[in-house]
Amino acid sequence: MNNNQEIPYKIYLSEDEMPTHYYNMRADMKQKPSPLLNPATHQPMTLDELSGVFCRELAQQELDDKTPYFDIPAEIRQFYKMYRPSPVVRAYELERVLGTPAHIYYKFEGNNTSGSHKLNSAIAQAYYAKKQGLKGVTTETGAGQWGTALSMACGYLGLDCRVYMVKTSYEQKPFRKEVMRTYGASVTPSPSDTTEVGRKILAEHPNTTGSLGCAISEAVEYAVTHEGYRYVLGSVLNQVLLHQSIIGLEAKTALDKYNIVPDVIIGCAGGGSNLGGLIAPFMGQKLRGEADYQIIAIEPASCPSFTRGVYAYDFCDTGMICPLAKMYTLGCDFIPSANHAGGLRYHGMSPALSELYHQGLMEARSVIQTDVFDAAVLFARAEGTLPAPESSHAIRVAIDEALRCKETGESKNILFGLTGTGYYDLYAYAQYNDHTMTDYIPTDEDLKRSLDKLPKMD
Amino acid sequence: MNNNQEIPYKIYLSEDEMPTHYYNMRADMKQKPSPLLNPATHQPMTLDELSGVFCRELAQQELDDKTPYFDIPAEIRQFYKMYRPSPVVRAYELERVLGTPAHIYYKFEGNNTSGSHKLNSAIAQAYYAKKQGLKGVTTETGAGQWGTALSMACGYLGLDCRVYMVKTSYEQKPFRKEVMRTYGASVTPSPSDTTEVGRKILAEHPNTTGSLGCAISEAVEYAVTHEGYRYVLGSVLNQVLLHQSIIGLEAKTALDKYNIVPDVIIGCAGGGSNLGGLIAPFMGQKLRGEADYQIIAIEPASCPSFTRGVYAYDFCDTGMICPLAKMYTLGCDFIPSANHAGGLRYHGMSPALSELYHQGLMEARSVIQTDVFDAAVLFARAEGTLPAPESSHAIRVAIDEALRCKETGESKNILFGLTGTGYYDLYAYAQYNDHTMTDYIPTDEDLKRSLDKLPKMD
Repeated sequence: MNNNQEIPYKIYLSEDEMPTHYYNMRADMKQKPSPLLNPATHQPMTLDELSGVFCRELAQQELDDKTPYFDIPAEIRQFYKMYRPSPVVRAYELERVLGTPAHIYYKFEGNNTSGSHKLNSAIAQAYYAKKQGLKGVTTETGAGQWGTALSMACGYLGLDCRVYMVKTSYEQKPFRKEVMRTYGASVTPSPSDTTEVGRKILAEHPNTTGSLGCAISEAVEYAVTHEGYRYVLGSVLNQVLLHQSIIGLEAKTALDKYNIVPDVIIGCAGGGSNLGGLIAPFMGQKLRGEADYQIIAIEPASCPSFTRGVYAYDFCDTGMICPLAKMYTLGCDFIPSANHAGGLRYHGMSPALSELYHQGLMEARSVIQTDVFDAAVLFARAEGTLPAPESSHAIRVAIDEALRCKETGESKNILFGLTGTGYYDLYAYAQYNDHTMTDYIPTDEDLKRSLDKLPKMD
Repeated sequence: MNNNQEIPYKIYLSEDEMPTHYYNMRADMKQKPSPLLNPATHQPMTLDELSGVFCRELAQQELDDKTPYFDIPAEIRQFYKMYRPSPVVRAYELERVLGTPAHIYYKFEGNNTSGSHKLNSAIAQAYYAKKQGLKGVTTETGAGQWGTALSMACGYLGLDCRVYMVKTSYEQKPFRKEVMRTYGASVTPSPSDTTEVGRKILAEHPNTTGSLGCAISEAVEYAVTHEGYRYVLGSVLNQVLLHQSIIGLEAKTALDKYNIVPDVIIGCAGGGSNLGGLIAPFMGQKLRGEADYQIIAIEPASCPSFTRGVYAYDFCDTGMICPLAKMYTLGCDFIPSANHAGGLRYHGMSPALSELYHQGLMEARSVIQTDVFDAAVLFARAEGTLPAPESSHAIRVAIDEALRCKETGESKNILFGLTGTGYYDLYAYAQYNDHTMTDYIPTDEDLKRSLDKLPKMD
C-alpha cells in the first residue's frame, strides 16, 4: 500500500502548482442536493431572491449544480499566494509515538493569521462583493475564526466589514475582537441597538448574552436595509464548499506527486466547509466511479447532526428568517452544550454533504470532548502544532484508525484535515489541563423536543 | 540591482537543503568578543564553572570562538523538519501599497506554535541536556515566547521543564501559561516560595509583582540546587546566536537560489538572538572581506542599549548572580517603560553583537512604539500576517528604507527578520486601536542613574 519513495515531512506545492479552478462536486452528483426554499412560499429560491442577500456572482455559484469548474480570478490567486499552497504534512513523529504502521498525513490550513481555512472563502466572497462595486459586507461570528478571516480579506481589499459578534464571545474573547479591529472591521456585540431585531430582543431580554441566531438576524437585517451591503456566511452554503475545494485540490496534487493514495479521509464537520473542501476531488472521483475512498465526517457527541439528526427541510438560523435547506439537522432551536469547538456547534449541515451522506457515499462518527482533547495534546507534543478544538475531532479519529492499524498490522494511508490552530482556544485547554472539562450528550428527549419543531412541509 | 527572474511570493527550501551545520560568527572575528567573567574574581569563566549552570556541550559552545561550524545533530534536524525550513517571503503586497521600487524580503520565523524563532535554540538546548542524561531544565520567561518554545522542545523530548514566569505576566497572560502547561511544563509565578531567593523577596516585598531579574535568580537557584537540572537562556549568549544562525543560513541559501543579494539587512534586537542569527552568514562574508552589506539593529527608544548605552562589563541579570559580560548596556537595574515588545526590554545586548557594533560593522537605530505599531498594522493589512511587536520594529525601518527608495528611485533589496506573530500581543494592539498607547524615552538623567551603578573593574 505504501511505496518506499522518500517522503518529506512537509509536501509543499510551488505557487505555479496552485489550483486555477475551484471544483464543484454537485456537478458530478446524479442526485443533486435539494434546493434552498423561500421560507414564505416553500418555492426554490431564485437568483433574484438570493441576489438581495448575497452578491450576484456568489448567488449564481450557490445555485449552479451543473458547472464542474469555476475559474479562480487572478486577484484571489494573488491573495492566496501570501499563505498558500498550504502543506500536506506527513505526521512522522505522531506515527512514531503511536508505534503504528499506518502513514498519517494532514493538510494544514492553520498557518495564517485567521488561524484556519476560513480565509479561503472569505477572500473569494469579499472579492466578488468588491467587484460588484459594493461598499461592504456584514456577517456574524461566534468563536471568531470566520470574523477574523473576513476582516483580513476586507482589510486587504479596502471593503467595509461589519461583524456582529455574539455578546458573550465579545466579552470573553477580547483578543478575537481586537484582531478584527486591527484589520479595520467594526465589531458590534449582538444583540445591539443598531438593528430593529436587536432593539426588539434587547427590550424583551435586557440581560441576554446573545446567540448566533440573533447575530445572524442582525447581520442580515443590516445588509438588506443598507445600500451597497450584502451578507456573507462562512460555512454550510454551496458557494463556501466550492471555494474550500482548494484544500482538497491542493492535497490531491501533493499526494499524487508522491504516488500516495489515501485509504481513509477524515475531517471535522460543523457546517461542512472544511470537510466539503478537503474531500471535493476525492469525492468527485468516487461519484464518477474512478476511485473509492473511505470518507469519515467527525462531529462532537454534543451536536450530532449527521449521527443522530434527521434529513429534512429546516431553517438555517434560529431566527427563522433565512431560506429553508434540506439537510441533516437537530432542529433550528437545538442548543448544544458549551463544547469548546465553537465551529462545530451548528444544528444543521451543508445540504451537499447531507445528500452525499444520505446516499451512503460517506460515513459519520461522533466523539466526546475529553477524548478529543486527549488526542489534541498527544498531537501537540508529538507534532509541535497546537491544534484547534474543531480540528482535534479529526485528529481523534485519525489516531483511532492508526491504532487499529497497529492491531491489524495494516499500513493504511490516513489523510485528515488540520483546519486550524488552537491559539485562541486556551481557555478550553486550561479546562482540560485542570480536569474540569465536561461534555453533555443530548438525550433522545432533548433531540425530540427540537426536532418536533421542524417546519411542516407540504 | 534586481534581476528579472520570476520570484515567488514565498521561497521555500526543500528539507534536504536545510543547513547541516550552525555557523559561529566569532570564528571569523579578528577581535573576539570579551569573555564572560566570574562576578567574584573578575577572571574569565572556565568550562568547569560554566558547566555547573549550563550543560557541558552548551558550555563548550559558549566558550568556543575558534570553530566556525558546529554539526547540527540528526535529532535536532528531525525536530526542525516539523517547522523548517521557514520561508523567505517577498513582500509584493507591501511593496504595492508603499509604491516603492525597492524589493522587500522577510525571513518568517513565526509559523510554529511558540510563535517565534525561539524554538530554534530551545530544541538545541533541550537536546544537549537530554543527551547529557539530565532530568530537566529551568528558565525564566517574561513575555512568554521563550518559555513556550522551551516547553515544546521539552515536551517532545520528555524532559522536565520548570518555567519561572514573572508574576505580573503570569496573571496578565493566562494563555501563555496555559500553552506551556499543555506541553507539560510546570509554570511557577515568580517570586515564589520554591526557592530561597524567592522566599526572601516575598518576605521583604509581599505584594511584589515580580521582575525578570528575580525570575532568573529563581531559575538559576533551582537548577544549581537540584541534581540533574541545568539552567537555560533564550538570548544574549553565544550558544544561542550559534543555534539561531540557521535563520541566516537558510535565508542566504534561499536568496542565492534566485541570485538576490540584499543591500540592507534589518533585524530587531533585544538580547540579540534573532539579529545575530539572521545576519550570521552575511556578517561572516563581511568579516572575511568577501562582501559588504548594510546591517541595521533596531531597538525601542524606551530601551536603547546600542544607541544610548555604553560598552562595558555589566551583570546579565538584575540579581547580579550571573557572570559579567562586556556589552552595550544601560545598567543592570535600568527599568524600561512598559513597551509592549517584551522581548526587547533587556538592559544589555549580546556580547558578540556588541563587539561587531563597536567595530563599526553594523549600525543601530531606535524607534518609538506608536510608529512601530503604525508599521505593524500597515504590514498586517497588506501582507496578511499579524506581526509581533518585536518584529514590527524591523518592519518600521524596512518601510522607512523602502520609502526612501521611493524618493531616490533606488531599487534596493531589503531583507528583514519577521521573528514572530502577534497573536498573544493583542492587548498592545488594543491600546494602539484605542489610541491609548504611550511610550517613555528615558532621559539622560535616567540613564546616568543606572549607568552609575556599573560594576567597578580593575
